[in-house]
Amino acid sequence: MTGKEIKEMQKKYVLQSWSKQGALNPIPVERAEGIYYYDFDGNRYTDMASQLVNLNLGYGNEDIALAIKEQVDKYCYIGPSIASEPRAKLAKMIIDLLPESFGKVFFTNAGADANENAIKIARMFTGRKKVFSRYRSYHGSSFGAGNLTGEPRRYPLEPGIPGFVKFFDPYIYREPIEFESEEAATGYYLAKLREQIIYEGPDNVAAIVMETITGSNGVIIPPKGYLPGVRKICDEFGIVMICDEVMAGWCRTGKMFAFENFDVVPDIVTFAKGVTCGYVQLGGVAISKEIAAYFDDHVLSCGLTYSGHPLACAAGVACVNYYTKAGIPEHVVEVGAVLAEQLDSFKESHPCVGDVRHIGLFSCVELVKDKKTKEPLVSYGRDPEGIMGKVIGLLKERKFMTYSHENMVFICPPLIITEEQLKEELMKLDEVLSIVDETF
Amino acid sequence: MTGKEIKEMQKKYVLQSWSKQGALNPIPVERAEGIYYYDFDGNRYTDMASQLVNLNLGYGNEDIALAIKEQVDKYCYIGPSIASEPRAKLAKMIIDLLPESFGKVFFTNAGADANENAIKIARMFTGRKKVFSRYRSYHGSSFGAGNLTGEPRRYPLEPGIPGFVKFFDPYIYREPIEFESEEAATGYYLAKLREQIIYEGPDNVAAIVMETITGSNGVIIPPKGYLPGVRKICDEFGIVMICDEVMAGWCRTGKMFAFENFDVVPDIVTFAKGVTCGYVQLGGVAISKEIAAYFDDHVLSCGLTYSGHPLACAAGVACVNYYTKAGIPEHVVEVGAVLAEQLDSFKESHPCVGDVRHIGLFSCVELVKDKKTKEPLVSYGRDPEGIMGKVIGLLKERKFMTYSHENMVFICPPLIITEEQLKEELMKLDEVLSIVDETF
Repeated sequence: MTGKEIKEMQKKYVLQSWSKQGALNPIPVERAEGIYYYDFDGNRYTDMASQLVNLNLGYGNEDIALAIKEQVDKYCYIGPSIASEPRAKLAKMIIDLLPESFGKVFFTNAGADANENAIKIARMFTGRKKVFSRYRSYHGSSFGAGNLTGEPRRYPLEPGIPGFVKFFDPYIYREPIEFESEEAATGYYLAKLREQIIYEGPDNVAAIVMETITGSNGVIIPPKGYLPGVRKICDEFGIVMICDEVMAGWCRTGKMFAFENFDVVPDIVTFAKGVTCGYVQLGGVAISKEIAAYFDDHVLSCGLTYSGHPLACAAGVACVNYYTKAGIPEHVVEVGAVLAEQLDSFKESHPCVGDVRHIGLFSCVELVKDKKTKEPLVSYGRDPEGIMGKVIGLLKERKFMTYSHENMVFICPPLIITEEQLKEELMKLDEVLSIVDETF
Repeated sequence: MTGKEIKEMQKKYVLQSWSKQGALNPIPVERAEGIYYYDFDGNRYTDMASQLVNLNLGYGNEDIALAIKEQVDKYCYIGPSIASEPRAKLAKMIIDLLPESFGKVFFTNAGADANENAIKIARMFTGRKKVFSRYRSYHGSSFGAGNLTGEPRRYPLEPGIPGFVKFFDPYIYREPIEFESEEAATGYYLAKLREQIIYEGPDNVAAIVMETITGSNGVIIPPKGYLPGVRKICDEFGIVMICDEVMAGWCRTGKMFAFENFDVVPDIVTFAKGVTCGYVQLGGVAISKEIAAYFDDHVLSCGLTYSGHPLACAAGVACVNYYTKAGIPEHVVEVGAVLAEQLDSFKESHPCVGDVRHIGLFSCVELVKDKKTKEPLVSYGRDPEGIMGKVIGLLKERKFMTYSHENMVFICPPLIITEEQLKEELMKLDEVLSIVDETF
């Protein structure tokens, strides 16, 4: 098929996520390699968002490809109740990478159902019903994960599920009060969270669910002491602490898991995306030994046909091995320093850049109309003139492919990006920010 | 790794669906072919449930295997907003197989998220919130799909989502009243459904969701005129009719889609399992042209990272092609007649067989303590002595692998099973039913 045929067929027959279908104009992809993909006219696009922050190892990773093919020759699928080598192996590898306190893994197909099952597990384990999550968060769009989600993508699921409670993120940049120090901010957020839990009744609260680092809602990096403080509140009230590492995990921040940056150990970690880079879909819930033991003699009321899919797990074994073998965490720290330096300089040099936040190769640029008032380039949940689409379009003209959310542009390239490649792409971003400075 | 090592590793590190983890003893699988799989000691097991009624083409289908490998050499994954050949192709193939009124497909990872998104779509399209589904049903175990589910696997999700309403299945065998005819039964069920919709407020009801043929809750085949009658009620009140074809679709009943047996056309069809046979996970929501047109200028507020996963869609293209190429529907009708005849004879000959229900290669045997009173072998939601586990164990001793639900045993082999293979396996079932006759 030609590129044009593929494009027209997809437009005619496929519904695309989060869009009005009438105006779609998808690029047809012919091939992909490393951090680039190519259309049928030979145009090269740089993937500066790792698609949806999942292609941590970029396109065409040979280890993963080979592992998939080898597993195809054995068997693609066998049910969850049968013992399968890649499934057992990957679970062990994940538990070995996590802190000593972790015991077992429940596999799912992706991040949304990982979060769905994590809260089910926490509710069964504690016998409590309420679940806390944050306003600026995205945990998926199925009913359970979507009710955890705090941003507008949860609205179509409302009226929501009883007992899903929202609290505020430690979003210091936009806080209406100014803090004297990072510690003061941490103290404030923890006090408010504890107060809210007391109002909701601590004995009713099964879990606190957080993206370790808020992803699509702004790469909000928790201030020093925040996550250990949440841990302390969880311990005080017997609440299960769940870190959603779907985006932030698997070396994105320069550590295998993002929570390792913050001197804290959660009870449950949900993961997806980077565990296979999406070569085959996979997600999962890693739980502590203590919670795992509870299910030795209580029924785990979770299940899905493809739990621990052998082909997906085979891809996962190769992918997770590759992170270590290729020294990806170290590389992310190194290239991440370059990214940090450049983004910080953009914040200095561009009037439209209100804030930049970065850790490893996880970063975003927050665009404003006015640096002093911090008035965002587009208001929360509203962009009637499509300004952010225009910004993304300017980048796309330069083959710098990424996505925006609210007034933020994401820079989350595949973790194999070289310093040279990164600098080449950031020059394009610099150029576009200059246009934004003058235009909006 | 040895079989023993794999088994021990899986037990130590992997959480298994719907189970107490302490007592697990999973068979380690070494290889699989056709309708059989093999452990590391060379034992051969016959898969009489197509794993979880998904492996319609059995193990080792070479067309699907080759398609996966070829797609791996191109690219495994690209985001949903980019045009991809296997994604576009598969969507077109599915729409071409469905009635003229169907327009577009939204792809998911599996059946649960297909149902989640189907109800979201129906709610957006109608602007209404309530959703009807049936007590004897399983639609998945994530919060949305699990709230559609009527059987006990929904309990851990309760208190449920507001607006999810349950109605009764046309389960004639266990109805406390006797009907003079199938038509009388149909009339009764439709009148009760219509009455219930009026009590709930027809203008509040977005969708009626049904497994076209109830699957794990008893292969309940709708009586003549039932589905067209539901269609009429939906038309009367502007309600979206959703058929869940996750189990019943893809030739399981001898038709490509199960609804084709009943002279009815739904508005939305959800599918999964047989679309790829689970070689790579895939599900989806096929919607009518009318509903699709609504989303031309309204945002489709649905999305997932792996929507239309290229590797999964490549497997789907090969799999769906194979059904037609190999004449699977015709084969199912032929072998299904043998299955029907034998099961009917078991109902005659075995005191423990209260009822058998079958269509194509979709069937179950309902076990009773007393044929006259119809007292089930185990009560609903309770089997403290593990009687059904023992029945399944007796079959397992004979390498006849399947699962039970309540007092029912499922016989849903891969659709490639030959008449000879089927007869060989049904002899084992006959033997076990004789033991059940005498033991329980």
